Amino acid sequence: MKQVVNTIYWKNGTLKILDQTQLPSKINYISCTKIEQVFDAIKKLKVRGAPAIGVAAGWGVYVGLKNSKAKTTAEFKKDLGRIVDYLASSRPTARNLFWALEKIRASVNRSPNRNVEALKKIIFKEAQRIAKEDKALCERIGNFGEKLIKNGDQIITHCNAGSLATAGIGTALSPVYAAKAKGKKIKVFANETRPLLQGSRLTAWELEQNSIPVTLICDNMSGALMRKENINMVIVGADRIASNGDTANKIGTYSLAVLAKHHQIPFYIAAPFSTFDFSIPDGKHIPIEERHGDEIRRGFGKLTAPSRVPVYNPAFDVTPNRLITAIITDRGVLYPPFSKSLKKLREFQKNK
Amino acid sequence: MKQVVNTIYWKNGTLKILDQTQLPSKINYISCTKIEQVFDAIKKLKVRGAPAIGVAAGWGVYVGLKNSKAKTTAEFKKDLGRIVDYLASSRPTARNLFWALEKIRASVNRSPNRNVEALKKIIFKEAQRIAKEDKALCERIGNFGEKLIKNGDQIITHCNAGSLATAGIGTALSPVYAAKAKGKKIKVFANETRPLLQGSRLTAWELEQNSIPVTLICDNMSGALMRKENINMVIVGADRIASNGDTANKIGTYSLAVLAKHHQIPFYIAAPFSTFDFSIPDGKHIPIEERHGDEIRRGFGKLTAPSRVPVYNPAFDVTPNRLITAIITDRGVLYPPFSKSLKKLREFQKNK
Repeated sequence: MKQVVNTIYWKNGTLKILDQTQLPSKINYISCTKIEQVFDAIKKLKVRGAPAIGVAAGWGVYVGLKNSKAKTTAEFKKDLGRIVDYLASSRPTARNLFWALEKIRASVNRSPNRNVEALKKIIFKEAQRIAKEDKALCERIGNFGEKLIKNGDQIITHCNAGSLATAGIGTALSPVYAAKAKGKKIKVFANETRPLLQGSRLTAWELEQNSIPVTLICDNMSGALMRKENINMVIVGADRIASNGDTANKIGTYSLAVLAKHHQIPFYIAAPFSTFDFSIPDGKHIPIEERHGDEIRRGFGKLTAPSRVPVYNPAFDVTPNRLITAIITDRGVLYPPFSKSLKKLREFQKNK
Repeated sequence: MKQVVNTIYWKNGTLKILDQTQLPSKINYISCTKIEQVFDAIKKLKVRGAPAIGVAAGWGVYVGLKNSKAKTTAEFKKDLGRIVDYLASSRPTARNLFWALEKIRASVNRSPNRNVEALKKIIFKEAQRIAKEDKALCERIGNFGEKLIKNGDQIITHCNAGSLATAGIGTALSPVYAAKAKGKKIKVFANETRPLLQGSRLTAWELEQNSIPVTLICDNMSGALMRKENINMVIVGADRIASNGDTANKIGTYSLAVLAKHHQIPFYIAAPFSTFDFSIPDGKHIPIEERHGDEIRRGFGKLTAPSRVPVYNPAFDVTPNRLITAIITDRGVLYPPFSKSLKKLREFQKNK
C-alpha cells in the first residue's frame, strides 16, 4: 500500500507533523523544534488518532531533550522524567501515548551506564523504532482484517482511524486498503463525527485520495442507513482497550455498536496491541476526556447555539465487550470472550 | 403557558414568519406579501416543524389568493388549485402541510354558491382557525403528556418540536412546559440535530428563553448519555404517522429510538391528530425528502469535507411502531398496538 500523505515523520533534524485541523482545505506541516509545539499539536488535535499520538510522543521526547544541558546521566534522567510527565498530560485517554512514553523511558533505563549524548541517541532510535513499528503493524492489521471483507461489502466507519491516525496505512481503514489491493470492491460510509468532523474532514478526504468510494453521512444517519442499505460491517479504531475487551474510542462509537447489534451487523475494532491496557480490568477504569463546550457551540467559527448554554462534550465513549464481534490486532483477530483470547495471545507471545 | 416568541402570525394584513435559519443570532420576521415568499420560507426551513408548516400553508393560500383577479367562482377555484399544488410541492414529508391545504380546499368546497370575495374571506377564516386550533391542541398535548413526567426527570429530545415548530407551545416540548407549570423540576438534553442544528439553534434557545434547564449534546452522544446518566424518557415530535403508528420524524429519531429500546428508556412521540396519515398502512409508504449534500459538506458556511464527496442526506427517517412506547396526541395518549388504539379513537370521535 502506497501512502498518499505522511501524517508524521522526521526529516533533516526536525519533526514534521501534518496539521490535521486544517484539512481538507490545506496541507500544512508544522516543523516542531520545541517540546511545546508537540504538546500543543497533540492537545489541539493537530495530530490525533491513538497510534499517531504515540509516534508524536516518542519523537516529542527527543525534541524536548536533544538540546538538554544536563551534564550527568542523573540530571538527564530528571529532564526525561519532566518531559515524559509533560507530554503525558496532553491528553488523558489514548493508551498509545503512555505506552510510547514508557517505551522511551524503558530504553533509557535499559542503558544505565551511558553518557548524556549516548542516551539522546538511544531515545532518538527508540522513537524511530516506534514509528517504523507502527507502520509495520498497520500492514499486519490490514492483512488480518481484509480476510473479513468480501467483494462488494458496504462498510460504516466512524471518526478517522486511517493513515492520518497512524504512521502507516491506518488501523480501521487498513483492512479496507488491503482488501482493495486484493481487487475487492468496497464502499465506505463515513460518519462525519461531530463535533470535530474527523469523518468528513479526514476519512472522506483520505479515502478519496486513495480512490475508495466513500459516502459521507451525519452521525445520526447510520441507524437509518443500516435499516435501508445492506451494510456488511462496522469497523472503527480504538483509543484504549481494557483487559476484558471493553473499548474506548471516539464519542459515538458506543451508539454505533448498539445500532449494529440491533441490525445484526458485525462490529469490529481494529487496533495495534499497544492499545491494550492490561493494568485495568474493564472499561469503567478508562478516563474519558471532556473537552470545551465551544467545540459544539461554535465549532466552525460561527455561533450555532446560545452562547453560554451548558454542553456535555466527552471526546470518547466506552463500548462494552459484549457489543464487539472481534478485535483485529497486528497479532491476529481476537474473538469473545476477549479476556480468554487475550490471555492466550499474551501467553503465546511470551513463549515464542 | 406564556409564549416567549411568536413563530408565525397574522398582523395588519400581512403574514409574519420568524426566519428560524437566523436563530439564535437574530430574531427576524419575514413579511410575506407574495406566495413565493411563503413557498421559499417552507422550502428553506425558515419555518419548519410539521404543525407550523401546516399553519404557514393555510395562510399561504390566502396570501396567494387575496389579490386574485378571478371574476367567477370557477376561475377562482382554478387559481386555488394552482396555489394548493404549488405549496404542496414545497416539502414532501410533513403530513400537516397536505392536511392544512385540504382543510382550506374543503372550506371552499363547502361553500359552492359564494362569490370570489366571499370565498377569499372563507379561506382567511379557515387559515385563522387552523392557527388557533394548532395553539389549542398544543396545550392539550401538553396536558396529556405532562402526566407522564415525574418531578426530577431527565429527558432527551431531538430536533425542535417546541413552540418554534408550532403556532402554540409545541408538541414534544409542550409536556415539558406543562410539567414545569405544575412545579415539576425537569432537565432536558437537546441533541444538536445535524445537519441543520435545529436542536442547538432552536431547542436549546427556546428552552433557555423559557427557563428550562437544558444541556446541549451532539447526536452521537445520546447513547453514551443513556448509559451514564439516569435518562427517564425520550420525547420527539413527528412529521407523519402511518395508520399502524410508524412515525417519520427528523433524521436521527430512529437511531435514538433503538438506543432508548436498548437502555429500556420510554420513547414517546408527541403530535397532533392532524399528523396521522390514515391513507397509508405503514411507514414504508412515507416519502422521505433528500436534501442537498452541501448541508453536510459546508453546513456552517465553511467547507468541512472534500468539496464533491458523495453525501447521503435524508431529512427524515421512519421509526417503526414497535420502538414507540406511546404517542401523545391532542386527543389522548395512545399505546400499542397503535392500529387498534387509533381505530378506537377514530370511532369514538365519530360517535361524539
